[in-house]
Amino acid sequence: MTEHSLWRFSRALHAAINERQLDDLDPLIDDDVEWAIFGPIDMFPFLGARHGKAAVLEVCRQIAERVRVHRFDRESVMLGVDTAASMMRYSLTSTACNRPISLRLAHFAQFRAGRLSRIRVVIDSFDLVEQALGQPIHLPRIAS
Amino acid sequence: MTEHSLWRFSRALHAAINERQLDDLDPLIDDDVEWAIFGPIDMFPFLGARHGKAAVLEVCRQIAERVRVHRFDRESVMLGVDTAASMMRYSLTSTACNRPISLRLAHFAQFRAGRLSRIRVVIDSFDLVEQALGQPIHLPRIAS
Repeated sequence: MTEHSLWRFSRALHAAINERQLDDLDPLIDDDVEWAIFGPIDMFPFLGARHGKAAVLEVCRQIAERVRVHRFDRESVMLGVDTAASMMRYSLTSTACNRPISLRLAHFAQFRAGRLSRIRVVIDSFDLVEQALGQPIHLPRIAS
Repeated sequence: MTEHSLWRFSRALHAAINERQLDDLDPLIDDDVEWAIFGPIDMFPFLGARHGKAAVLEVCRQIAERVRVHRFDRESVMLGVDTAASMMRYSLTSTACNRPISLRLAHFAQFRAGRLSRIRVVIDSFDLVEQALGQPIHLPRIAS
């Protein structure tokens, strides 16, 4: 039984981030990859959409410069033949603000011939912003 | 071939929200359901965690009072025997702030005997907050 592409990609991505070593990740990215992490790109320029392997490797390099992953828990995972979706919690440090951050996200990924061809990531972005700021943003209760 | 529980639940939920009619939803919720929509509960008290059918029906009623769904697109979906995950875009109106809102979310759901037993939803919450406020929140670029 062959290992699902998700596990190989996940190992290579986390090694790329924590060891700033992209060699293992490179062959696991499709040349034509579509990549999107939805979130406030004004605050975090490495969020947003990227297209093509070069742009994705570059953004992984940028993430690796700014983030250390201490731990992640995959709370839910669904695997198809060439698809995978997970809900995950990350314990990170941002090297920019030097603060511990707990991040919740969900990703949907598609693979082609074992390579990542498409990934879309939704993050609990308001929670992320407040943690990165180190203080709550005052919000009106508009829907009580 | 039996219809997947996700489709029946989705129809009943959207009818509950738009028609404020929970009768079809009631039998599709497990008595012991675990429900969580991660997001800023200070601003949106109907987000957050709920446990048990009565609490979930009550929060659906609260959502129905505050939200109209105009359209939703399921951009990705994965189905297991008793599980389902989707990435979705909603076009909503909040009746509280009377503003059109475009919402991106991902959900992971589990069913037991055709009833929803667990759902966890991640939303692009910063984008939601800015739209509900009707203006951007100024953010420092902390990670450039």
